[in-house]
Amino acid sequence: MGKSILVTGGANSGKSALAERLTLGRGASPVYIATSQAHDDEMRAKIARHRASRGPGWTTIEAPTDIVTALRDSDGAAPRLVDCLTMWLTNLMLSKADWQAEADALTDLIPTLESPVVFVTNEVGAGIVPENRLARQFRSAAGQLNQQVAACCDEVWLSVSGCPLRIKPHE
Amino acid sequence: MGKSILVTGGANSGKSALAERLTLGRGASPVYIATSQAHDDEMRAKIARHRASRGPGWTTIEAPTDIVTALRDSDGAAPRLVDCLTMWLTNLMLSKADWQAEADALTDLIPTLESPVVFVTNEVGAGIVPENRLARQFRSAAGQLNQQVAACCDEVWLSVSGCPLRIKPHE
Amino acid sequence: MGKSILVTGGANSGKSALAERLTLGRGASPVYIATSQAHDDEMRAKIARHRASRGPGWTTIEAPTDIVTALRDSDGAAPRLVDCLTMWLTNLMLSKADWQAEADALTDLIPTLESPVVFVTNEVGAGIVPENRLARQFRSAAGQLNQQVAACCDEVWLSVSGCPLRIKPHE
Repeated sequence: MGKSILVTGGANSGKSALAERLTLGRGASPVYIATSQAHDDEMRAKIARHRASRGPGWTTIEAPTDIVTALRDSDGAAPRLVDCLTMWLTNLMLSKADWQAEADALTDLIPTLESPVVFVTNEVGAGIVPENRLARQFRSAAGQLNQQVAACCDEVWLSVSGCPLRIKPHE
Repeated sequence: MGKSILVTGGANSGKSALAERLTLGRGASPVYIATSQAHDDEMRAKIARHRASRGPGWTTIEAPTDIVTALRDSDGAAPRLVDCLTMWLTNLMLSKADWQAEADALTDLIPTLESPVVFVTNEVGAGIVPENRLARQFRSAAGQLNQQVAACCDEVWLSVSGCPLRIKPHE
Repeated sequence: MGKSILVTGGANSGKSALAERLTLGRGASPVYIATSQAHDDEMRAKIARHRASRGPGWTTIEAPTDIVTALRDSDGAAPRLVDCLTMWLTNLMLSKADWQAEADALTDLIPTLESPVVFVTNEVGAGIVPENRLARQFRSAAGQLNQQVAACCDEVWLSVSGCPLRIKPHE
């Protein structure tokens, strides 16, 4: 059973529910590391929906940009769920942080962690090429980040219509 | 061999052809439940192309919004192909119907059907997040609907470049 | 081991790196058939990045539209990597060529080739339906082309977050 897991998929493809099951299967008292910020009603509703679907028993840490510290500080006790890397990347880019340096710090940290961690991320690169240059840069960066994290995780899962498919190691 | 099947995939990924093969493999005199409406030339051309590729021997029922009745009324005789759920959702939303209630009625019905049914649906959530709020709501709803129908189908297939991949039960 | 291979996936999903490994595994002195043209800085940077990641030892043939001739002329000597079919389709459409005739010529050629060939292509149809009619036509054509080439290749691979998944023949 893998200790570091990446769960990817499109919007509303069942990623979070799969990631919650994988986290719960790796220990009690799970920790939810939330990267989303409740800037508007749409996001507030989404956060509330996710919180309700998780059920009780989770501790939440809010870490819009500093998931590296959140993972380091919460290590050694319980499994963690980081939801999600794509929002983390968005937050880093919006705050003009060096996302590549943060990604490198994250992938340096992952192999050293004692407690399990499950990451959720999004597939954003399988549509038509966006006309907007920033959108193209974002989808390139998101794809790069997914590859980089996948390379250092023990397991990678793809969720399609709520059906989990393990793509690393291949079933 | 599953009796209720969901076939998903991107645009022009071979979903319809796969769904036709799966339907034909489940019995003679297949029924095609069409959700598309010929509002413009682009759609008329697409409908004609699909009709030609299916070949003769199919009975067509037009059901832009009421596939629940179409499935109930045609039950007990021959396998059905519903093409497609994403257009059904579009039609329900455009007509201000309660799509969630319709989806619930559909997933209540599926386990009670006697004759096989194959559903086609679309992956719409693997591109960049749309700037348009309605487009975001639609892709959330489409993802939810896919998950809900997949959960009550015996088989789920993903078509990629015309190559079928069974994701439930996993091969 | 397949002699004609298609590698598909979203943007920055690890397609090119996978295609390079598959090409190198099929013989020495590989040939890179490039369809991209350095029209602007963004494309020049991408081409330079790909060239650096491939490393030395590759011969490059530039073939923005005529990959059929490039494949025929380079046959009998070394494995080829065509990167990528989606850009080739874009170039054909922009130059008002008959892309369907070119696709037919390509798929007629593939089974007659002596040396291995690996094609890279893009998944562009798994996002929301584009509002732009030309974008819809392009994603239809891209999906059709992918299906047509996949049908005559010995192997088809999907790359997700850098994880390769063989979808034909299915693992």
